[in-house]
Amino acid sequence: MQLTRTDVVDAAVALLDEYGLADLSMRRLATSLGVAPGALYWHVANKQALLGAVADRILLRAAAPEDRPSPEDWDARLLRVAGALRDALLSHRDGAEVVAASLAARQVSVPVRERLAEPVRAAGLSEDEAEPAALAVLHFVLGATTDEQSRMQLDSLGVLPDDGAPVALATDAAAGFALGLTLFVDGIRHRVRTLER
Amino acid sequence: MQLTRTDVVDAAVALLDEYGLADLSMRRLATSLGVAPGALYWHVANKQALLGAVADRILLRAAAPEDRPSPEDWDARLLRVAGALRDALLSHRDGAEVVAASLAARQVSVPVRERLAEPVRAAGLSEDEAEPAALAVLHFVLGATTDEQSRMQLDSLGVLPDDGAPVALATDAAAGFALGLTLFVDGIRHRVRTLER
Repeated sequence: MQLTRTDVVDAAVALLDEYGLADLSMRRLATSLGVAPGALYWHVANKQALLGAVADRILLRAAAPEDRPSPEDWDARLLRVAGALRDALLSHRDGAEVVAASLAARQVSVPVRERLAEPVRAAGLSEDEAEPAALAVLHFVLGATTDEQSRMQLDSLGVLPDDGAPVALATDAAAGFALGLTLFVDGIRHRVRTLER
Repeated sequence: MQLTRTDVVDAAVALLDEYGLADLSMRRLATSLGVAPGALYWHVANKQALLGAVADRILLRAAAPEDRPSPEDWDARLLRVAGALRDALLSHRDGAEVVAASLAARQVSVPVRERLAEPVRAAGLSEDEAEPAALAVLHFVLGATTDEQSRMQLDSLGVLPDDGAPVALATDAAAGFALGLTLFVDGIRHRVRTLER
């Protein structure tokens, strides 16, 4: 059987879920596929490109371009896309960290910023501001999910100190995320109205 | 000379700035101080606690409690505290990552969430919502500065692929950060008015 790029990314995602980002090496990946490390480089240029391909896989379902325009209002679209992003990042071990690092390294092909910018533009924000506003929403999503995922993973290892407060429930994280997004949506709405005056 | 906890944290911050988070080990720290690794454990319980002390040092100037109430309006206070946080995180190599990881691990003593919650409460948001709204602002600050710092560090290593677009200037990052904060402030203002009706 010929090794394909899809096989390589499949195996990398499986290793990520089992061992986490710190233990995802090209050597371990080659071993899990039963090939020499050199064989991987036909499919991915280096570790950074591999992580970019893993990030694309994580993001694909949440942020793939849609076939037809959604009938929802812009605010419902923005909340839905941001919520789908959070779900996608939380569904793989270290998912938020992999995606954040790959976005910073410009290794992500899935147009996640565009998917967030579209409803912001539809809200009526100027072309100049729609892009940075969408990036701000993305930064919030990454910051919130990185924190939530780190806490969940540390909790599951039992290494968090007892700080006297009850451990935050996942529902608190979801509610806090929803409140943060609502503040963004209201902020965008306020800004559009101010511009219209 | 007796080794103090301050000496240990000073040396850890110096190593962080010189080598980055990935190369900050207890062994390297002991070597830089000219002591046996075991001597460190009189001052910090483990690596996680050490990083928490480093995070506290990074945050201290930006988020120390203030002696007297500020005469500024709540929105000016929120923008100032969030801006000071960004400056503090960017002023040390991997500063955003160290602080984000230490906050998730509950190893930070500096009351950074409280410093952000104070102006949000002063704005008139309910007690129930002020805490999660402040956490959302903190998540935005962490997400934005982690991304900005990763890009700066990758740029300085010359390892970013040429994506056809001019490299984003630091002023763009600062402007995007300011726009994101403004959307939060306007969102909070809108929410307070809606609650008052």
